[in-house]
Amino acid sequence: MSMIVNRRDVNFLLYEVFDLGELLRAPRYDAYDREAIDAMLDSAERIAEDKYLPCAAELDANEPEFDDGEVRSPAVVHGALDAYAAAGLLAVGFDEEAGGLQLPHSVCIAMGGLFSCANTGLWGYSFLTIGAANLLNSFGDEEQKERFLPPMLEGRWFGTMCLTETQAGSSLADIGTTAEETDKGFYRIAGSKMWITAGDQDISENIVHMVLAKIPGGTAGVKGISLFIVPKYRVDADGSVGERNHVTLAGLNHKMGHRGVTNTLLNFGETGECRGYLVGEPHQGLKYMFQMMNESRLGVGHGAVMSALAGFLFSLDYARNRLQGRHPQDKDPNSRQLPIIEHADVKRMLMAQKAYVEGALALMHYCASLIDQQKVSDDSQETARLGELLDILTPIAKSWPSEYCLEANKLAIQVLGGYGYSREYPVERFYRDNRLNHIHEGTHGIQGLDILGRKVRMHGGHAFELLVASIIETVNEAATTPALAKYASTLSDAVEEIEDSTRQVLAAEDLNLCLANATLYLDAIGHVVIAWMWLKQALAATKGLLDASPSDGAFYSGKLQACRYFFNYELPKISAQLKPVAALDDTCVSAKPELFIGE
Amino acid sequence: MSMIVNRRDVNFLLYEVFDLGELLRAPRYDAYDREAIDAMLDSAERIAEDKYLPCAAELDANEPEFDDGEVRSPAVVHGALDAYAAAGLLAVGFDEEAGGLQLPHSVCIAMGGLFSCANTGLWGYSFLTIGAANLLNSFGDEEQKERFLPPMLEGRWFGTMCLTETQAGSSLADIGTTAEETDKGFYRIAGSKMWITAGDQDISENIVHMVLAKIPGGTAGVKGISLFIVPKYRVDADGSVGERNHVTLAGLNHKMGHRGVTNTLLNFGETGECRGYLVGEPHQGLKYMFQMMNESRLGVGHGAVMSALAGFLFSLDYARNRLQGRHPQDKDPNSRQLPIIEHADVKRMLMAQKAYVEGALALMHYCASLIDQQKVSDDSQETARLGELLDILTPIAKSWPSEYCLEANKLAIQVLGGYGYSREYPVERFYRDNRLNHIHEGTHGIQGLDILGRKVRMHGGHAFELLVASIIETVNEAATTPALAKYASTLSDAVEEIEDSTRQVLAAEDLNLCLANATLYLDAIGHVVIAWMWLKQALAATKGLLDASPSDGAFYSGKLQACRYFFNYELPKISAQLKPVAALDDTCVSAKPELFIGE
Repeated sequence: MSMIVNRRDVNFLLYEVFDLGELLRAPRYDAYDREAIDAMLDSAERIAEDKYLPCAAELDANEPEFDDGEVRSPAVVHGALDAYAAAGLLAVGFDEEAGGLQLPHSVCIAMGGLFSCANTGLWGYSFLTIGAANLLNSFGDEEQKERFLPPMLEGRWFGTMCLTETQAGSSLADIGTTAEETDKGFYRIAGSKMWITAGDQDISENIVHMVLAKIPGGTAGVKGISLFIVPKYRVDADGSVGERNHVTLAGLNHKMGHRGVTNTLLNFGETGECRGYLVGEPHQGLKYMFQMMNESRLGVGHGAVMSALAGFLFSLDYARNRLQGRHPQDKDPNSRQLPIIEHADVKRMLMAQKAYVEGALALMHYCASLIDQQKVSDDSQETARLGELLDILTPIAKSWPSEYCLEANKLAIQVLGGYGYSREYPVERFYRDNRLNHIHEGTHGIQGLDILGRKVRMHGGHAFELLVASIIETVNEAATTPALAKYASTLSDAVEEIEDSTRQVLAAEDLNLCLANATLYLDAIGHVVIAWMWLKQALAATKGLLDASPSDGAFYSGKLQACRYFFNYELPKISAQLKPVAALDDTCVSAKPELFIGE
Repeated sequence: MSMIVNRRDVNFLLYEVFDLGELLRAPRYDAYDREAIDAMLDSAERIAEDKYLPCAAELDANEPEFDDGEVRSPAVVHGALDAYAAAGLLAVGFDEEAGGLQLPHSVCIAMGGLFSCANTGLWGYSFLTIGAANLLNSFGDEEQKERFLPPMLEGRWFGTMCLTETQAGSSLADIGTTAEETDKGFYRIAGSKMWITAGDQDISENIVHMVLAKIPGGTAGVKGISLFIVPKYRVDADGSVGERNHVTLAGLNHKMGHRGVTNTLLNFGETGECRGYLVGEPHQGLKYMFQMMNESRLGVGHGAVMSALAGFLFSLDYARNRLQGRHPQDKDPNSRQLPIIEHADVKRMLMAQKAYVEGALALMHYCASLIDQQKVSDDSQETARLGELLDILTPIAKSWPSEYCLEANKLAIQVLGGYGYSREYPVERFYRDNRLNHIHEGTHGIQGLDILGRKVRMHGGHAFELLVASIIETVNEAATTPALAKYASTLSDAVEEIEDSTRQVLAAEDLNLCLANATLYLDAIGHVVIAWMWLKQALAATKGLLDASPSDGAFYSGKLQACRYFFNYELPKISAQLKPVAALDDTCVSAKPELFIGE
C-alpha cells in the first residue's frame, strides 16, 4: 500500500462526494477529463514517491546549515525540487493566460497533498512560491507580472511571505519595517522579519519576498500597511538576475519539526539599499495579503491533514504486520500472537485517525470545490454565497485539522508503542511537524477570534445562516435515507446547540467576555462541520454500496463505519465545549495574573 | 520565580491538603519535623537548580554516543549525578535498617520532582536505580541485599529494569530470555532486552539489571517468569567490581525526547557466560516485578506532571513578560501592547495548564499519602483498604497525567507561539519528553484494560466501592461549605455516571466487547478523580483563605479559580466519553482490518 495517499479516497472525494465530473463540463475546464486528471495525478504521485518520500527522514535529521551568511542545503533537495518544477507542478493552478495549466483547485490540492504528505519540509518551498505567485498575479501590475511570474511558475525563482516581526507576532498593527518612497521607481525597505519560511536558500536563482511594510506618514496600525515585492537579487530590465538587493540572512531558526525547509530571520536594508516595488495601492497591503493568508490558512489545514494521513497510513500498515498479544478472553500463552490490528484499542486508534484525517480532508475538498464553483459561476449572487461560505469555513479549515490531525499523529505513535517514539520510525516526525500548524498563519486563538468575533457576525450573520442552511440541506437528504436518518437528526440537534450558543454570545455586550471562550466555540463548530462532512461521505458511500465490487464494498463500509464513529464518539463532545461559551463563563478571563501560582 | 517548582503548592499539598503534619507524629517518622523537611527540600532544590537545570537543553541536543560497544556521556552528566548521589538523595526513601533516611514517600516525591522537572533525562538514572534497589530490598535475600544495596544507595552502582523484548512489548507472556540453572550458585542468562532505559552508561562503576527470564521447563506464559539480578560486572566476594558479565550493548535507541538518558538494546550471554542470581522463588518473577512496575507507574505519572509543570512555569513567566497585541475592544494601534497574559485565550491556556498540572500533582500526593499511611498503620483492615485504593488509582495516576499533562505541554508551546515551536526555548523539549509517558510502563491501552478488566472487578468490586466512598466523603464535606456546595453536587452526579457505566459494562458477557472502550472509561474516571482532587484542594483553600496574607490570598484564590475551571470546563467532558462505554458501542471493535482504507 502507498504511504502517501489513498487514491481511492481522493477519487471518492473528487467524483462521488463533490462531483468534479460536473465541474469539468464547464468551458473553463474543457481541456480536462477524468482520464487526463488521473494521468497527471499518477505522474505527480511517482515524483512524490521517488523524489520526496525517500529523503524526508534525512532532511529532518540534517537541517540546512547557516554558513558565512549563506544557507547550505543537503544535495538531495536540489534534485527533488528540480523534478517537481520540471514537471510543471508549480503552474498547475494558474490560469492559462498567466502561463498556468488552469486545473481545478480540487485537483491541485490532491496533487499538492502527495508532496506535502511525502515530505512536508520540501513542500514548504513550493507552497510559498505558489502563494507568492498567486498574490502577484492578483494584485501586481502587468510589468511586475511579466517580470516575476514566469520564473516563479517555472521554479527558477521561489517566493516567500514576510509579515511577522519579532515584536509583532500576531499583532500586525505593530510591524516596524518601513518603505521609503524614492523617485527612482522603487521604495527603500528597512527592517527585520522573523519566522520567514524559505526566507533564504541555495536552491533557486532568486527569491521573491512579498513584504509588508509601512510607508512613513501613513496611518498607524494595520491601515498603514503596504505590500512590496522585494527580490533577493535585483532583476535587470531583461529579467536577468543582477546584484544582491541587501536582504540578508541574520540567522536560521531551529524548529521542533518542519526541518526540511529553512526558517529565517531576515534583515532588509541593513547592508545597503534594499529595493522594494509597491504592489497595487499604498496602504492596501493587508487587504492584498489576506488573499494569500486565507489561501495559506487553507493550506495549513491541508498540510495538517497530510501529516496525519502519513501517520495513519504508516500505523495502519504497521498494525497489520506487527504480531503482539492475544484477545482478553484468550490467555493461552501457547497460542499464536495476533497482528495488533486485532486489538480493540488499536482498532479504536486507527478508526479515530481515519475519522479525523478523512473528515478533515473532505472539508479541504469542500472548500476547494467552493473555490472552483466560484470560478465557473456567472451568477454574482451565487459567487457571493460561495465566497461567504468559504470565509466562514476558513478559520475552521485551518484550525480543526491543526488540533485533531495532531491528535491523529499522537495516536499513530501510540499504535507503534516504543517504536513510534523512536526516531527510527517516521511517526514521531509527523507529530513534530504537525505541531506547527496550530501556530503559523494565525494562531489557534486568532482563528477563534476570527470566527466568533468576525465571521459569525459579518453581513448581519448571513454567512453563518448560509452555513447552517448548507448543513441542513445535507441533513434533509440524509433524513430520507433510512440508514442515515438517526445521524441526520443528531446533526440537526448539534446545529441547534451551535445556534443557541451563537445567539447567547452575540446578545452579550462585553466584547472581551463574548470572545473569552472563542477557542472552545471554534472547536465545537469545527466538530459540527466535520460531522456534516461525514454525513456527506456517508450519503455518497450509501449510493456507492448499491452496486459495488468487493473491494469498493470494503471502502464504502469503512466510510459508513467512520461516520458512525464520528457521530457516536466525537460529536457528543460539543456539549461540554459549548457549555462555557453559552454561559459566557468568565472563569479564565477574570483570572488575575497573580492567581496562577500565587505570586 | 523558580522554573522547577512552586514550593508554596508543594507545602499546600503536603500540609494543608494531605496533612503530613499528622503523619510526622507517628513513631516511624519521629526524626523529622516540618523544619527539617523544609531544609532538605531547600538543599535538594539547590542541587536541581544548579546542576540539573542548566544542562538539560545541552543533554537533549547532544545525546550519549555509542562508541565501539561503549557509551560516551557528556561530561556534565557525571558532575550532576555525583552531586545528587553525594547528597544522599538515592537513599531518602529507604528504611533506616536498609541504610536509608526513612523519609515519608510524600516528601520523596516532592524531592524527586525537583530533579524530574529540572532535567527529566538525568532523573531517569536515579529513578531506575531507586526502583531496582526497592525491588532488591523487598525480595532479595540477605546476602544479595548486603552485596548490592549499599553501592546502589550510595550512587556508585546504578540499576535498571529489563522486561521488554523486541517480539514481546506489551505481551510479557512471550518473552524469550532464558535462565539456565547451574550448580555454581548462579543461572546462565541468554537473550535480548529492548528499550532498556539507562541500560548502559559510563557513569556508575557497575549496573545492576533486574531481569525477567524463563527457567527452561517452567510453565508457558507469565507464570513461567522468574526474576534475576544480572550485574554488568561480576561482583567479587568482597563486594569489589570484577570482570565483565557479558551483558553487551547492542545499540542505543534514539527517541523523540528523554534524550538525556540512554535507552538501549542489550544482549545477555552473547559473548560469554552471563551470570544471573535468582531473586526469591522461581516463577514468581512477574509478581515481584509488579511491585516495581506499580511504583514505576506512579513514577511515570509523576514524571508527566513534572514535564508539564516545567512548561506551565516557563509559559507563565513568558506570558507575563511578552508584550503583544491589545484587547478586542481596544483597537487603537497607538496604545501600548499588553503582556500577553492579559489576553483571554492566553489566560485560558494557563488556567488549563494549572488545572491539569496541579490537579494531577494532587493525585500523586494522594497516592503517596496512601503509601505513607500504610506504613504507619497497625490496623490490617485499614492497611488493606489503603492498598485497594492505591491499586485502583494506579492506572489512573499513570495515565491521566500522561494524557492531560501532555496537553498542558501542548498549550505551553502555544502560549509562546512561534518561539514555543523553536528549539531555542525549552517548551518544545518538555512536549517531546512527555510524549513517552503514554507508552512506557504499560501503554495507555494497557492501563485501560487494567482498570476496567481487573481493578473495578477485583474483590467483587470492593476497591471500586472504596474509591466511590472516598469521593463521596469529600463530596459530603464540600456540601456543607456554601461556596463549594454546587461542585459537591456536580461531582456526586459525575460519580453516578461512572457507576452507571461501570454497571453496564460489568453486566455484559462478551469480554472483548466490555473492554472495547476501556481507554475512554479510563479517561472519564480519571477526570472524576481529578475533579475530586480539585474539590479537596478547594476545601483546603477555603479554610486557608479565612486568615490569609495577601500573597497567600492570591494563592488560595487561584486554587478556587482552577477548581471552578475544572468543574466548568473539564468535568462535563465525561458524558461524551462514557456514552460509548455504557452503550457497549462496537463501532471500533467490529471494524474489520480491510475497512480502514478499503484494501
